Amino acid sequence: MANPFSFRLIATDGAARTGEIATAHGMVRTPAFMPVGTQAAIKGVHHDDVRASGADILLGNTYHLMLRPGAERVAMLGGLHTFMRWPYPILTDSGGYQVMSLAPLRKVTEAGVTFRSHLDGAMVELSPERAIEVQILLGSDIAMQLDECVALPAERAEMARAMALSLRWAERCKRAFELAPADRALFGIVQGGDDPQLREDSARALTTIGFDGYAIGGLAVGEPQQVMLKTVAETTPALPTDRPRYLMGVGTPDDLLEAVGRGVDMFDCVMPTRNGRHGLAFTRFGPVNIKNARHADDRGPLDAQSRCPAARDFSRAYLHHLFRAGESLGGTLLSVVNLFYYQDLMAGARAAIAAGRFEDYRQETKEQWSAKSDLKLP
Amino acid sequence: MANPFSFRLIATDGAARTGEIATAHGMVRTPAFMPVGTQAAIKGVHHDDVRASGADILLGNTYHLMLRPGAERVAMLGGLHTFMRWPYPILTDSGGYQVMSLAPLRKVTEAGVTFRSHLDGAMVELSPERAIEVQILLGSDIAMQLDECVALPAERAEMARAMALSLRWAERCKRAFELAPADRALFGIVQGGDDPQLREDSARALTTIGFDGYAIGGLAVGEPQQVMLKTVAETTPALPTDRPRYLMGVGTPDDLLEAVGRGVDMFDCVMPTRNGRHGLAFTRFGPVNIKNARHADDRGPLDAQSRCPAARDFSRAYLHHLFRAGESLGGTLLSVVNLFYYQDLMAGARAAIAAGRFEDYRQETKEQWSAKSDLKLP
Repeated sequence: MANPFSFRLIATDGAARTGEIATAHGMVRTPAFMPVGTQAAIKGVHHDDVRASGADILLGNTYHLMLRPGAERVAMLGGLHTFMRWPYPILTDSGGYQVMSLAPLRKVTEAGVTFRSHLDGAMVELSPERAIEVQILLGSDIAMQLDECVALPAERAEMARAMALSLRWAERCKRAFELAPADRALFGIVQGGDDPQLREDSARALTTIGFDGYAIGGLAVGEPQQVMLKTVAETTPALPTDRPRYLMGVGTPDDLLEAVGRGVDMFDCVMPTRNGRHGLAFTRFGPVNIKNARHADDRGPLDAQSRCPAARDFSRAYLHHLFRAGESLGGTLLSVVNLFYYQDLMAGARAAIAAGRFEDYRQETKEQWSAKSDLKLP
Repeated sequence: MANPFSFRLIATDGAARTGEIATAHGMVRTPAFMPVGTQAAIKGVHHDDVRASGADILLGNTYHLMLRPGAERVAMLGGLHTFMRWPYPILTDSGGYQVMSLAPLRKVTEAGVTFRSHLDGAMVELSPERAIEVQILLGSDIAMQLDECVALPAERAEMARAMALSLRWAERCKRAFELAPADRALFGIVQGGDDPQLREDSARALTTIGFDGYAIGGLAVGEPQQVMLKTVAETTPALPTDRPRYLMGVGTPDDLLEAVGRGVDMFDCVMPTRNGRHGLAFTRFGPVNIKNARHADDRGPLDAQSRCPAARDFSRAYLHHLFRAGESLGGTLLSVVNLFYYQDLMAGARAAIAAGRFEDYRQETKEQWSAKSDLKLP
């Protein structure tokens, strides 16, 4: 069968783009937000609610899944789509970021990464070839190359070294991926920290190798938003226009709007579910801290006009009570509210770009946040 | 408006009964299992799933709700039905059992119970009159009298004292309940430990006072199942046939079947949700400990023929993974599986009683459990 993976650009508006990624498991409308199903589950939320929110695609994580339940086991059980019963597109992260952030005693060499499992202490090797093999076993529609991610701020020499290593790993991943079934796609990852020249060099070299899509990695690792956005703006012009661009691990609703305006097509972030579990709801009127005492007697919903039942049908007083009482239903409901909000934000961006009014949409959306918000996000 | 509360006996089969309780918020088919929404939420489960399982009625808890968010606040927010968005029947426990089991520094006098809140250490008084006032404020369809519950085994004198005190409190609750809106019902609670004479005396005295229904309290407090069932069998004949009978805090699927066979109409228990959170699923083929390693590679569902999507659509391997990985979705899915199972067990009992074949149903159900079960419940 011919590779069903393709990217079709529907419209552009300034640097902002809207399009469609076709995969063997269905379409992904871009700009797209991918909820994070690290361990083959979106924390606290049923798949049906994730789908109902409007998500076209989920992210799964190679590092977590190779350790538990194991890539070979997932393959034997029919692959990740069947195992978790998500018959729609799935992208898998390569595991590099988690090795850097979670695993103790890690060692990076030319060959790959060796680390101690945070679960049972076993030593595990993750080479570019193994990262691809694991992702082929998982059966994701979009696999990511293994890369090395450095925390910012960092010395230029360190950023340059990690970028160059990531490029050599990109070539090895591309070769290893020749074994993948024809319906799979592989993305390269631009590195280079906050250095414009390193980012451009990385983007051009990856384009020469040739990938189905290009991610911007190594951001959302401690740098201010303006550094992140500046780096995005400096990187996207160096990427081919006919391939999707994925900004990894970003971010707040504001980050998403601003990055869309700089030419990004795809995002993933744990923020909607993590913040939901901690009592923070994203709404059209800005973020709401539902644990705040002022909600204790409020009969009003989070947003009476929302498409999300949880935002519309429960009072703020009840949601407040669930958090005060330690009832996990509160975290579940707010996670669902946030997943709907993120999807609606992207749907609005897609429509605005298609209509040639993205800049108005960006401004109107942000004005509405600040009009009623009770707290500011960084 | 005339009191919509009524109980209609549809059929009997031996001591087993099936009927319908009418309330201002809808019908309750009996035998009925009431999921426990202690703090105005069923732990880990969305109301919509509770309703989809077939639950006609929920239980809320006076002790918890009077402490948080407070009965006056719930009343101001429109009552418990509106507050938690459950527009169907609700029964509230009186708080006596939780005072005995949760509150430190409790003191029982003729006037009532004084206890220290387990939340903030404040001293709280709960008299029979206050227990009724709180339940009127919450707006439950069925309120329970305040009673004193003693753990078993106990001295006869202690059981007799608590039973007599509970009777005097029953009279005071009945008087206090005259202030309730006409569409509410009040149940008395039979006490007397495991002593047949005390139980009979309690049942007869309560019947003389006259209640809309009668609960059997003070069981499932540490006694063996045979003692519990013997006490039930000795108590139900002393209760009027034209009022519902509610066995409080019971129990396993086996307990429910056996108690239905002894004339009980209503049950509540945290077991479906608590066990679900701990990885134990109730199925037609007996209980399943999903954390057991033998499920790690099992592509089969818990029950391919189940009415419950979670029992039918996810593999045992995936459910096992969710528990191993600490994903709360696992506990949620198994709680839903168990709530469906309990409701289906009661629906089967209702149909069997109506068809005059309850004893066959009881035996067939239990044989099916033991055929494939991988563990035994006490």
